[in-house]
Amino acid sequence: MIITENISLKTNGECDVVNITHHVETELAKSNLKNGIVTVFVTGSTAGVTTIEYEAGLVTDIKEAFERIAPKGISYAHNETWGDGNGYSHIRASLLGASIVIPFENFKMVLGMWQQIVLIDFDNRPRNREVVVQVMGE
Amino acid sequence: MIITENISLKTNGECDVVNITHHVETELAKSNLKNGIVTVFVTGSTAGVTTIEYEAGLVTDIKEAFERIAPKGISYAHNETWGDGNGYSHIRASLLGASIVIPFENFKMVLGMWQQIVLIDFDNRPRNREVVVQVMGE
Amino acid sequence: MIITENISLKTNGECDVVNITHHVETELAKSNLKNGIVTVFVTGSTAGVTTIEYEAGLVTDIKEAFERIAPKGISYAHNETWGDGNGYSHIRASLLGASIVIPFENFKMVLGMWQQIVLIDFDNRPRNREVVVQVMGE
Repeated sequence: MIITENISLKTNGECDVVNITHHVETELAKSNLKNGIVTVFVTGSTAGVTTIEYEAGLVTDIKEAFERIAPKGISYAHNETWGDGNGYSHIRASLLGASIVIPFENFKMVLGMWQQIVLIDFDNRPRNREVVVQVMGE
Repeated sequence: MIITENISLKTNGECDVVNITHHVETELAKSNLKNGIVTVFVTGSTAGVTTIEYEAGLVTDIKEAFERIAPKGISYAHNETWGDGNGYSHIRASLLGASIVIPFENFKMVLGMWQQIVLIDFDNRPRNREVVVQVMGE
Repeated sequence: MIITENISLKTNGECDVVNITHHVETELAKSNLKNGIVTVFVTGSTAGVTTIEYEAGLVTDIKEAFERIAPKGISYAHNETWGDGNGYSHIRASLLGASIVIPFENFKMVLGMWQQIVLIDFDNRPRNREVVVQVMGE
């Protein structure tokens, strides 16, 4: 059985780290499936999905890490194409990846105790985001 | 139901970014499945898969990003093992990841309007690549 | 059909790269499924999963790559929250990702000849790790 749902979120951009674990748990509970996978996929090319221990220190640290990996202040060819100034946002999103797959067993995702699912919005402005949560199982 | 197909591609290496969205859409259409996931997996350890807004500026930018993250010109222990000089290619591929999973709903992948699926070939020479596209759904 | 198994591993931390391909192959063989996906997911927020050509040179190279991407010696806000000194471990894990999905066809994963599945433990001390291997197919 397969259930596909959308989560709509307002984000602030600039490496906004949003804890979506509870949203995903809610969709899993609604599906009433016992075993399988949840696929979390963000539509758009300036945001990504991963897991992290969601606490204020690491939220700061991940922003600084992405600033080292794909700095905002350097030149991006993308900015000459569109002039929207978010070349760094696209590169960060492509590096992190748009999706994550989490197995669940006995109605519960196999996350660690401190391991949360997060959306990271890399865009250079606030956005309305759609995150697809698809539950597939039996 | 599960359908597994191979896409064969010629790539140029050196961070060649190949838009494979249409190939994946074709395999999804052939499956005639309505809801589920498409898994895109590249065999080999010097290429990866992600999503990006596929335009010439970002293709340039992603090459430069990988040159910062795992530079070609520094020393790699791998090159002493095999002498094939592509240590940077392996490292880039392992960082990006070999697979991506995209949900589809009502016969259509949930990609954003500008979000394309790309194979990035990091090897230091042209390659023939096999990309596995597996459609699982109902 | 869905089978969910746990692999228990002792790791050394500090970017310990552990080849788990054989463990995953064993779970796939036990499932007796012909076609589908294997999802490999590491619980916890200081380890990740990817594929690599598993040889000593690249094991060294990937450690050095992560030291460039998220250096151990710089300041992390996380370390002020908990004092456990593993902020860099968390950041590396979130960048690499906790899961990978590998299609299998005709009882065999579609890995390249030199492409192995590895757990990378980024924590700053030895750990007991649980890796979930879930086989879904028909």
